[in-house]
Amino acid sequence: MKLCIFDEDRIGLIDGETVIDVTSALDELAPLRYPLPRQDRLISHLSELKTPIETASQSGARKPLSDVRLHPPVANPGKLVAAPVNYTKHLQEAREQEEIHQNNAAQVRVIQEVGLFLKATSSLIGASDAVAVRFPERRTDHELELAVIIGRTADRVKAEQALDHVAAYAIGLDMTVRGSEERSMRKSIDTYSVLGPWLVTADEINDSGNLDMELSVDGMVRQKANTRDLVLSIPELIEMASSFYTLHPGDVIYTGTPEGVGPVTPGNSIDAWIEGIGSMSIQVS
Amino acid sequence: MKLCIFDEDRIGLIDGETVIDVTSALDELAPLRYPLPRQDRLISHLSELKTPIETASQSGARKPLSDVRLHPPVANPGKLVAAPVNYTKHLQEAREQEEIHQNNAAQVRVIQEVGLFLKATSSLIGASDAVAVRFPERRTDHELELAVIIGRTADRVKAEQALDHVAAYAIGLDMTVRGSEERSMRKSIDTYSVLGPWLVTADEINDSGNLDMELSVDGMVRQKANTRDLVLSIPELIEMASSFYTLHPGDVIYTGTPEGVGPVTPGNSIDAWIEGIGSMSIQVS
Repeated sequence: MKLCIFDEDRIGLIDGETVIDVTSALDELAPLRYPLPRQDRLISHLSELKTPIETASQSGARKPLSDVRLHPPVANPGKLVAAPVNYTKHLQEAREQEEIHQNNAAQVRVIQEVGLFLKATSSLIGASDAVAVRFPERRTDHELELAVIIGRTADRVKAEQALDHVAAYAIGLDMTVRGSEERSMRKSIDTYSVLGPWLVTADEINDSGNLDMELSVDGMVRQKANTRDLVLSIPELIEMASSFYTLHPGDVIYTGTPEGVGPVTPGNSIDAWIEGIGSMSIQVS
Repeated sequence: MKLCIFDEDRIGLIDGETVIDVTSALDELAPLRYPLPRQDRLISHLSELKTPIETASQSGARKPLSDVRLHPPVANPGKLVAAPVNYTKHLQEAREQEEIHQNNAAQVRVIQEVGLFLKATSSLIGASDAVAVRFPERRTDHELELAVIIGRTADRVKAEQALDHVAAYAIGLDMTVRGSEERSMRKSIDTYSVLGPWLVTADEINDSGNLDMELSVDGMVRQKANTRDLVLSIPELIEMASSFYTLHPGDVIYTGTPEGVGPVTPGNSIDAWIEGIGSMSIQVS
């Protein structure tokens, strides 16, 4: 199932080049009062909602994908977790390029030492939004990543069981301004976390540890890789994250970027594709 | 006004040693459907709710404070921002003690270089919860901090206007496991962000830049300081944070800890006090 959030808070099922409005499936969920749950409600109810979504899709209004605005497919993630330097060749390029490492040793240590970092949920945008470059005098880089959407609470989960906790996948862009600050600040600028264009439920991805991916800027290929080259695999990332904190439904893990990161500037167009998920074009403003 | 969240999702007004149940004031807010707002609804409506809260307090049920369970006074913070090494004497002790700096240069650089970091909202607990030490073989430290609760959206705000965006203050404990990982992971362990015991609205704090604070462990004073010794003042922290990302109502800024940080172990009791706010006792388990 490929699900999106589109236009004015509508929930959509992707059917080829069409979006079917299945918002009525969420009538199953009672309205809420303060205090609200700290996790994503669509994701935490995804398995019960499967049948209502299929039913709703039989009579839902259809719109061409090209006519809708796509928002992040997880509206209320509790946290955005991200993996630094999780492809060996990206670690090499980070060590070689002073513009990336900024003479800051912390930026080129291995992931087993550095651990994971957080990105602010306020930085999250969808495929129809633009990345707004902040601090034009500094370098802002694209980082293409497979994004993993947690479906079931994961507290100190071992790698062997980790994939049972995954609800879905999406394309992530971990946009980054280079500089001396900790990653959790530099990578949390408004619009610097892209998630899209929709989520693909885990049952539709045969092996998330073997997916091709590619990113181009203005038609020139910059990043081209396969998730089989991850230093820490997806199950190992979930094990590491959940050894520190509980992962809740709707939490997103950006799994790290391969080699080929590079700067973008206003006016650029970023095309991102991951096998089994799809593609999206993001404008830079 | 001192407001708390207590027992089963009740909203309380603190009146001396008593909590008055004012939950009915929130009937003003319509119930919500998915997707939910990504900011705290009580805080974003705090000024409109002031009169309904006062009205509700005239007939609300009263309970002794000692009989209620206190939860974090912000139920749905969008993000927890925190300041590293923001008291000069704490920077000195961090540089002097290998157990703190762990031979990691990033941990003893000045705040102007390091910037701010994030703590996961899933790590948040209130005054009646216990801090659960994770990784007992590593050192977990207490860090007492004044916590600032944002009330009005702040996007690239200058220090001069920054305090207009503050709704309230509370006591924060930025619990920390020492080690090589980035702060946003080490300080995001479940239960490692304490906020409490209630919030005090900004109108009741004469000068948040001149508040005494003290923390004891099992009755022995460990930290004793005044917010006048902050390296970056509260307005400067808001300017720095909002230059990177928008601060939304309910976002919390942990303003940094003074000298005297030290380890805690299961069985310890932490007493924290900040002038004008109050005090709380947190168990370590």
